[in-house]
Parts: sequence; structure tokens; C-alpha cells
Amino acid sequence: MYGEIIIIGDELISGRTHDLNSRYLAGRLAEAGLKVQRMIVVGDDFRLGVETLKRALKASRFVIVTGGLGATRDDLTTEMVARALDRPLCRNARLADQLRAYVRARGLRMSAALEKMAWIPEDATVLDPSAGRCGFALVADDVRLYCVPGVPEQMRALLEASVLPDLKAAFPELEALHQRILKVYGLDEPAIAEVLEDLEGRTDGAVLGFYPHFPETHITIGWRARDAAGAGPKLDAVEQMVRRLLGPCVFSAENRELEEVVGELLVRTGRTVAVAESCTGGLIGHRLTNVPGSSAYFLGGALVYGNQAKIDLLGVAPEVLREHGAVSASTAQQMACGVRARLKADLGLAITGIAGPDGGTPEKPVGTVFLGLAAEDGVRTARYRFWGNRAQVKLHSATMAVDWLRRYLNGDPFLPGL
Amino acid sequence: MYGEIIIIGDELISGRTHDLNSRYLAGRLAEAGLKVQRMIVVGDDFRLGVETLKRALKASRFVIVTGGLGATRDDLTTEMVARALDRPLCRNARLADQLRAYVRARGLRMSAALEKMAWIPEDATVLDPSAGRCGFALVADDVRLYCVPGVPEQMRALLEASVLPDLKAAFPELEALHQRILKVYGLDEPAIAEVLEDLEGRTDGAVLGFYPHFPETHITIGWRARDAAGAGPKLDAVEQMVRRLLGPCVFSAENRELEEVVGELLVRTGRTVAVAESCTGGLIGHRLTNVPGSSAYFLGGALVYGNQAKIDLLGVAPEVLREHGAVSASTAQQMACGVRARLKADLGLAITGIAGPDGGTPEKPVGTVFLGLAAEDGVRTARYRFWGNRAQVKLHSATMAVDWLRRYLNGDPFLPGL
Repeated sequence: MYGEIIIIGDELISGRTHDLNSRYLAGRLAEAGLKVQRMIVVGDDFRLGVETLKRALKASRFVIVTGGLGATRDDLTTEMVARALDRPLCRNARLADQLRAYVRARGLRMSAALEKMAWIPEDATVLDPSAGRCGFALVADDVRLYCVPGVPEQMRALLEASVLPDLKAAFPELEALHQRILKVYGLDEPAIAEVLEDLEGRTDGAVLGFYPHFPETHITIGWRARDAAGAGPKLDAVEQMVRRLLGPCVFSAENRELEEVVGELLVRTGRTVAVAESCTGGLIGHRLTNVPGSSAYFLGGALVYGNQAKIDLLGVAPEVLREHGAVSASTAQQMACGVRARLKADLGLAITGIAGPDGGTPEKPVGTVFLGLAAEDGVRTARYRFWGNRAQVKLHSATMAVDWLRRYLNGDPFLPGL
Repeated sequence: MYGEIIIIGDELISGRTHDLNSRYLAGRLAEAGLKVQRMIVVGDDFRLGVETLKRALKASRFVIVTGGLGATRDDLTTEMVARALDRPLCRNARLADQLRAYVRARGLRMSAALEKMAWIPEDATVLDPSAGRCGFALVADDVRLYCVPGVPEQMRALLEASVLPDLKAAFPELEALHQRILKVYGLDEPAIAEVLEDLEGRTDGAVLGFYPHFPETHITIGWRARDAAGAGPKLDAVEQMVRRLLGPCVFSAENRELEEVVGELLVRTGRTVAVAESCTGGLIGHRLTNVPGSSAYFLGGALVYGNQAKIDLLGVAPEVLREHGAVSASTAQQMACGVRARLKADLGLAITGIAGPDGGTPEKPVGTVFLGLAAEDGVRTARYRFWGNRAQVKLHSATMAVDWLRRYLNGDPFLPGL
């Protein structure tokens, strides 16, 4: 059931516009059990378009073409298809009527350019000829060809209303791909690869994939079945196998963000949290408050970028800053306790570190970060080292901090520090 | 000078991941005067990859391949290239050393899979073999082939450092498209479109484009010339025309982020800033501290999500909260003054609002935001209404807040509130 997608448009080939269609198309087709083997973007170039079409028609069972169906001179898709298949263009009376009604309703005049849109290749059928959407389908040598507009909303509407149902009817033996995404934090890619390789022989046909999503990794479990109910038990079983191997590093199986998972834990346990951020500059608070309803558990916090702010806002002792430095376990500890006390929160989460690019020393290089978590049962601190540029160090530090909340609330140990 | 781009990866062909590379590549090549005629995405399929490579090498003067260069079993790009060109793979000692050093520095073990990465096609040269980036180039029958990683940061780094300079040297007759990007905040798209349409006839061949980049809009001015010096006067002239029409809504002509522009203004004027964030939850602090060296002017701030935090951390009067509500001009004013005083900052910037989706009322619907800015010459407040989902309201509010700093420091009026 291999197919190809051809995206036509100069604005894509020049990098002027982002192609929003190919990923959507590929994803929807894959879910339906239809495999795309190649996606090709070409400009509004007649010769190259015809050549690309011919090759795609020869290499696959279905071809979906988007773009180039409009009324302007550089809209050449219909002519390209006619040439590639060596078929004449015929005027489709129904389409012509629809176009005329559409134009009239908007107070426009029918033009030769618009009239051109009613001409489609011989034996092609119009896809849902409702106002404003042009598209056609045909079958040539057992290959199904669909031409849909490049405007994302119109493409999606025609795909769902006509193209997918037609393909499913044509290939009734298809089994849709059901996927589960396990999000992982705290294991590096090689470690995950090793685990999955280990599993590979024992999943009995379920397909495992993994995708870096800095600083997380997302593992997909895929299983083909007629319906979701048929896939559930298999996905559950493989999920359990992965969880047994990766333990609490798996933080979601429902495609949740880490901060959503933590939010649910805070709501469930009735706990509140306050943050004291130095090197992350507000990113932890920003992420926690990305979750709707976070005001139920997020009280606020202090951005203590400078030393004086650490003293004034959180009561960090000047001696501690002097003796241990702003980037130290003692400072993280006092920040965590300080913000917990001042905001009367159940949990006080603190972070201090060196995001770079400057400020590193041999003892505390760029990427050195101390975390602190104060709770009713005491205060914990740990030292970590993160890699990358300033943005990456900030992101990774903030993720580790949010993950501390998750692990604390779940009763899991923190990821080991240095 | 036609070229092709080949993007390799199952995660793209299945719609699992968004292809971030092709648009960037096509755009940068077009700027250099190099035209891409086709971009092809294929999965990790050896036979199809080899066929696609062979055809691209026959049809164009240069080919850029991204992805499939890693250490896992489905990374097949190097083997595909060797097969397409019928060349053996050779071990590159320099690359092997680099890989080993990279692995050692991170305390990892060298594995057979990593060792594989040091094998590249015969007569290929390693592109910038610095730690963590693998890529190679070769010339076959006068066609230049470049293989770069699929990780966007690595791809971009190699494109800029090696691929583009090499292509420019190979095709010295190219006229590059010199572009200037004017970043605009505070005018909506239709208003900008109208201004540009007005200008179009008077730019004498310079090409204007504009791209929404929520909540900003980016205007490009393009001009083809051999070198930057030749394009400068033309770009300057058109920039001045745009600036005359858009005034202080243009915040950068050097592709800077708004927070970088504000950072420079703070450094230049020797001022410090502290923030008091409610609905943005830390996003303003996060953005200000994304700028390296921001510790010179960003002292810190308070995340005062709950009412008690507003009182405890910033001294907002309980009566004000009771009478005017947490989302009010009076609260914004007290937050701004409070954070300025507590952190002894020159400027105190405050924000309070309703990010949604819940919490709106008829008088203060979701998206209602109050800003406050306290300085030596007094305190200003204003009310705005932003549209969109929670993330968009947060982002737009934070942008408006940072823009207030820019306009205040430049002596420009704020954007009018409600």
C-alpha cells in the first residue's frame, strides 16, 4: 500500500512558506495504515512536475498531489496531470456551475482564469464540489491519484471527507496503526536505544521507535489493528515491558507535558508549590503556569538573579553567599527554605547555577546547577552538570527541577547528581 | 545552479516529526542565489534512498542530504551514498579521533555503533569535524554532494560553516539575495500589508515580504547583488521608507530578539530592572534572562500568582486586592512600585491578567491584562486585551511588557491601551 505525496508550489521550494501539508497528510495516512514512501516538493515547473508525477505513478499504489489548482498562471497541476497521463482536459459542467455560483455569491465576475478551473483530466471525478474547494480524483493503471488544493484547511477538509474514505474503501484489508507515546526524562539516547534493542525481539510484532525531544526522549509503541479496542491490550503489554526497564524515567503514557503530570500530582496530593529561580530566570514558573488551573497549586516565587535579591527576597545569608558562592548547595538550600517559608507553600523548589556562556570556573564550569527542594520532611539538594548553550542549560535545568517535584510526589528517588 | 535536497528519516515520512530542515535549507540557499528544484523526503529505506540519490545526482549541480548519519541501525545515509556512487567506505582517522574524544569527554564508552560513524565514502572530506557534528562532502561527476545530520542545530551549524561557503566558492558568479529583516511589534497584519502595498511601486526592484511571527511580524527587504556592500545602500533606503511609515513599531533591523534590544538599551543607559509577574508566571524573566550577560541589568523579581504572594512578597495592599481585584490597574501599580523598591531597581515592571481558559468575567474577559511600569519619574499603567489560547495570551502579554521597557528607554509612547 505504498504511496507518494507531491507538494507543488514555488513558495515552498524557495523557503518562503512553511509546508504545513506534508506532515499532516503523512500522519493521517500512516494512522489509516497507508504507508507513504516519499514526499516530494517541487516548484511550479511544468517539466519537472510532469516527470515527478510520472515516476510517482509508476512507483506506488496511490499519489496525492497538493497545490497548483488555483486560477493563476502558475497553477499548473491539472495540466501536469493531463500530460503525465496523456489524457485530454474536459470541461466538467457540474464543477463549472459550482464555480459560477461561488463567484456570483461573492459579487465577483466569472473570468477566463476561473473558467479554466472547471477543466479537469478525462474520466476524473470531482472531489466534494462544494463552494471554494477544488479537487479531483482518478484511477490510472490501478493507481489512485488525488489532486487537492494547497491551502491547508481545504486540503484537510477534502482529505477527511473524500480521500481517506476512498482509500479505505479501495484497500479494505488495511489495519490502522495505533500508537502510544511514552515520554521519558533522565536517560540518554544510547541508554534508551540499548533497552529498546533488548526488547525488540520480545514485542511480538509491535514496533518501537524513539525520538529525541531535548531534554526528553519519546518512545512510540505502534501496533496495527482494525480498531483501537483491538490494539489496547498489546499496547498495554509493551508499555509495561518498557516501564519495567525504564522505571520512573517514564513520566507519561498519555502524551502529557511534564508540568501537566506534576500539576495532576499536586492536585491529587493537595500540595502547593513555590519556586526560587536564579539561572532559569522564570522558566520553571512559566512552565508550571502553562497548565490551565495551575493557580490551584502554584503560589508564586522569587526570581533571584542577583545576590542582593537572594538576600532581600529570600533571606539567604550573606555569609553563605560569601563562603560558598551563589552557585552552591548551601545557597540552593536556603533559597528553597526561604521561598517555602515566605510563600507558606508545602514545597519550596530552588535552582541556582551557571547558564553560560560566561561565568564558569574550573570548579564550577558552565552548566553547573544546584537544586534544592524544601518540604515538611526536610530539605534535599543535589548538584548536576548540563551541556549545551545557554538556552539548553536553562531548559534542561528547568526540566530537572520540575522532574524533582514529580519524583518527590511519587516517592521515587531523584536522578543521581554529581 | 539547480540543486536538490533529500531529507531522510522514517519519523518524517510517517508524519511523526515536523521537518524543520527543508524550509531553512531552501531559504538559505535561495538567499545565496542557489535554486532548489526539488526537496524529497524518504524514509530509512535503503533501496529507495539509493534510487532517489542517484536521480538527484543526475538531475542537479548540488545535492544536500540531511539525516540518517547517527549511530543506530536505521541510520543508512552513508551506506546509501556509497552504493549510489559505487564507492567503498573508508575509515577516517581524524573523525574517529574526534568521536573518541567526544565520547570520552562525556564519560561514555566507545561502541561499535559509534565506531561506524567514522566510516565515510572514499574521497569524501569531513565537514568541520568538531565534537558532536558529523557530516561529509564529496564531488562526483562535477556534482557537489553534502551529507549533514538531521538534528536542526547541527544541520544549521554545518550549513553555515561549511556547505554555503563551499557552494559560493564553487559558483562565484552567483548574485546573492541580500535581505534585511525588520521586526515589527504592535501593528496587525492587514495594517502592515496596506503599508507595504503602498510602498511596492517605489522600491525600484527591491522585494518586500512579510511574515507573521506571533505576536510579531517580520518584514523582509530583498535585493540581489554580488556582495553585501553593493546591497547596503539600497536596503538602507528601503528600510528608511518602512521606518518612516511604521515608526517605533519597528524594533529591530538586525534580526535581534526584542529582549536583546531591550538588554542593549538597559546596558547603554546603565539602568536595572526587576519584574513582578502574575499571569505570565515567569515568562518575562525567562525571556530577559535568555540574553547572555543579562545579569548586568536584570536583578530578579517576584512571581506573584496568588493574592497572598502579592501581599507577602510585594506589599500590595489587601484593600486594593479586595476593592479593585488582582487584575486591575491599582494592583499593577502597587506590584510595579513594590518590586522596584524591594529589589532597589531603576525600573519595576509588573503584569497581572487573566490568561484563561477560565477566570474571565463580563467586565474582565479572558485576555484582559494590566501592565505597570515604575521608574524614578513615576508609575504608568495601562489595560490591554489579548486574544488567543492560554499560551498565546501569555506570550503576547510578555511581549507587550518587554516592549514597554523598550519604548520607555527610547522615549517613545507606549502602544495605546483600552
